[in-house]
Amino acid sequence: MSKPRPLSGFPEFLPAQRSVEREVVETLARTFELHGFSGIETRAVEPMDQLLRKGDTSKEVYVLKRLQDTEAGKDAGMGLHFDLTVPFARYVLENAGKLEFPFRRYQIQKVWRGERPQEGRFREFMQADIDIVGQGELPFHHDVEVTRVMLEALSKLTFLPGFRLQVNNRKLLQGFYAGLGLDDVDEAMRLVDKLDKLPVEKVREMLLAEAGLTADQADKVLGLADICTPDDSFVEQVRALGVTHELLDEGLAELAQLVRECQDLVTDTVRIEADLKIARGLDYYTGTVFETRLDGYESLGSICSGGRYDALASDGKNTYPGVGISLGVSRVLVPLLNKGVLVADRSVPSAVLVALVDESSRASATAVATALRANGVPCEVAATASKFGKQIRYAERRGIPFVWFTQDDGTHQVKDIRSGDQVTATPDAWTPPAEDLRPQVVTNTASKENK
Amino acid sequence: MSKPRPLSGFPEFLPAQRSVEREVVETLARTFELHGFSGIETRAVEPMDQLLRKGDTSKEVYVLKRLQDTEAGKDAGMGLHFDLTVPFARYVLENAGKLEFPFRRYQIQKVWRGERPQEGRFREFMQADIDIVGQGELPFHHDVEVTRVMLEALSKLTFLPGFRLQVNNRKLLQGFYAGLGLDDVDEAMRLVDKLDKLPVEKVREMLLAEAGLTADQADKVLGLADICTPDDSFVEQVRALGVTHELLDEGLAELAQLVRECQDLVTDTVRIEADLKIARGLDYYTGTVFETRLDGYESLGSICSGGRYDALASDGKNTYPGVGISLGVSRVLVPLLNKGVLVADRSVPSAVLVALVDESSRASATAVATALRANGVPCEVAATASKFGKQIRYAERRGIPFVWFTQDDGTHQVKDIRSGDQVTATPDAWTPPAEDLRPQVVTNTASKENK
Repeated sequence: MSKPRPLSGFPEFLPAQRSVEREVVETLARTFELHGFSGIETRAVEPMDQLLRKGDTSKEVYVLKRLQDTEAGKDAGMGLHFDLTVPFARYVLENAGKLEFPFRRYQIQKVWRGERPQEGRFREFMQADIDIVGQGELPFHHDVEVTRVMLEALSKLTFLPGFRLQVNNRKLLQGFYAGLGLDDVDEAMRLVDKLDKLPVEKVREMLLAEAGLTADQADKVLGLADICTPDDSFVEQVRALGVTHELLDEGLAELAQLVRECQDLVTDTVRIEADLKIARGLDYYTGTVFETRLDGYESLGSICSGGRYDALASDGKNTYPGVGISLGVSRVLVPLLNKGVLVADRSVPSAVLVALVDESSRASATAVATALRANGVPCEVAATASKFGKQIRYAERRGIPFVWFTQDDGTHQVKDIRSGDQVTATPDAWTPPAEDLRPQVVTNTASKENK
Repeated sequence: MSKPRPLSGFPEFLPAQRSVEREVVETLARTFELHGFSGIETRAVEPMDQLLRKGDTSKEVYVLKRLQDTEAGKDAGMGLHFDLTVPFARYVLENAGKLEFPFRRYQIQKVWRGERPQEGRFREFMQADIDIVGQGELPFHHDVEVTRVMLEALSKLTFLPGFRLQVNNRKLLQGFYAGLGLDDVDEAMRLVDKLDKLPVEKVREMLLAEAGLTADQADKVLGLADICTPDDSFVEQVRALGVTHELLDEGLAELAQLVRECQDLVTDTVRIEADLKIARGLDYYTGTVFETRLDGYESLGSICSGGRYDALASDGKNTYPGVGISLGVSRVLVPLLNKGVLVADRSVPSAVLVALVDESSRASATAVATALRANGVPCEVAATASKFGKQIRYAERRGIPFVWFTQDDGTHQVKDIRSGDQVTATPDAWTPPAEDLRPQVVTNTASKENK
């Protein structure tokens, strides 16, 4: 077999890169669990009729077919999920009688989309979703809760660049547009959503030509979109535009509460702002909406998005409102890992290499390793009893920080091969410094600049 | 949307069940890492020509097709992986220049097979694989190593029934058959492999009729298959059959070493035995072979299998020998979870419910929760400020063991709702007993008997 080549759009990691991803996933899961979110996984496949409920994504679905399917079309009804929201909505309906509401769940899984691979877009990628779902009703304080949980989770990923969480509220937009007397609120929202990609003058033209706004209406719509504050001072700026509507009041109150009640989580690197141009395009949000930019990687687009649905799911008897947010784990990590900005300081979990004098001492070396592992120290025994210098280089190549030597008299020495320091130790008592127990994620800004 | 129904062959878990699976996965990963195994994940898809290299599994592959693929057949070359060995072999070849050998990896992922669902067989299921791969050569002590790692991992899953790891060696079988003068060693091995499903008399008939053995040869082949010892005493029993061959000697020595060097890991529930009828059918093993039976669930077949390959992969320049073992996580857990034999003692990660006097005290309740989380205590704030009795029942239904009350005077009380004990506490100092921090897996033997 000749050397296989990577498949475009299906990123894979080397061991040291995967250990960064694992650290991210574990940190997220731990944070979500601290907040009472239950972890679930759903199957990778859904019936096609479920996947195609939102017509505009149909082209992205991978359909499954059994290779030797003699009963034609028998499995044709299944495809790979393209997000974690559709399967979660189905899971809630399927298990509604067995779940307790409000139901908090997190879900960290791969999803698949058959689209053309490009920067930040993959055919297989990992998402981390949190949602809170109610049965019949879901008070607004849960919007604050999911925001706080995701802010806290992001702030624990200290090795990543900073984040800017941008929040808005559909009620605010819809109320403002209605108060302005616009005929087609959705069309205006769709055009405002283009402000990220198009110059403001172009969007203004489209508002006039396509959505039929007057010049004054267009100015106010763009004036609203221009408001962006790190606190609740946006309320005053919106009021200054002179538009009034009951729904606008509701949206302003919700968004102001959200921004206020997250202030204690703001740091230098993790910020929140009310950004009134965020609309989340065609998605079916009905209140709070989220997007997130990664500092220095704005071209990736939003790396963490979501919002409030009045009906995540409905089975005729009950409606299940939800609020959630989805972090694009691969979208963040793949560019940072590929550019070498993030890397782990070793390619193996081992903190210690137990050196071998000769092959006949493998049993006693294994006993040393067993004693170290009993204290939670990951380690491995040298693969061959080569010269000590060669064994040390074996450790160096893998980034293993310590090498363990057993002397002829049965005493032990452990050497930190980074500093050269060597001390006497006993296998059942010695442990490395806490920071050496697991591979550490290191950020390499030099690589970032060079590539 | 009407209530969705489960898809046959695609098991999914409720939150309390998933927390058992997560505990298993984390325990396995932690153990593998203690032994220096690097965790990797490979993409879900492989080129079809890779998946079809073993002709006999072709019917099980799910082929991918983009729904609106206008360029017919453009993606037709991809399918979902049906095990973790084929993708791992490809990963090793693709990244050989960037990996350090011997390369130890673990991989815990879902795999897919389009076969008919039945007991212990699924269309989507999780496997946990460990392998050690060398470049050019891989000494036998690594066979001992993977065996020890898997035995240790299984022994840490204390809530599972006992395991019996059955080991054999292909060299032993081939050498014995060659020493007996059999013409078609593979055919004999294939028939002996049926001893699990067919009565010994039937296999004897087939050895005579299909493989052309003499009565004496058949007796010796079946005599060998009948040998099963928990230690290296099998060597003597094989010698007593009077067959000699160089390859037999090699196989006997390897298997005896393996069984001897694992004796210190044997417990009441995790055992190892040299079982000379294990042949692993058509798989391409060349030395050590493994199967594993779960006590009381023998009808599941082998739940953990593997062995030694002389060539896991080869790229013309280098050959990569490997030894590995694969645990069928879903095969073990799905029946135990579905029968209620295993369950977690709560459906949420929360150890504490912070009760709410009224909605206006939500901010101070959130501050209590934040303090508890800072000490690693998973908790949630009550969803509504209902009567305390109702809030306690909310905790009970989820299995949350503690409810936290803040008094009018600002002091705090925490109540263990299982015992009714209530004590004064402070949010930044109190932690629950260690066993209450995370959901615990409990075994329910009553359910096992009732169902």
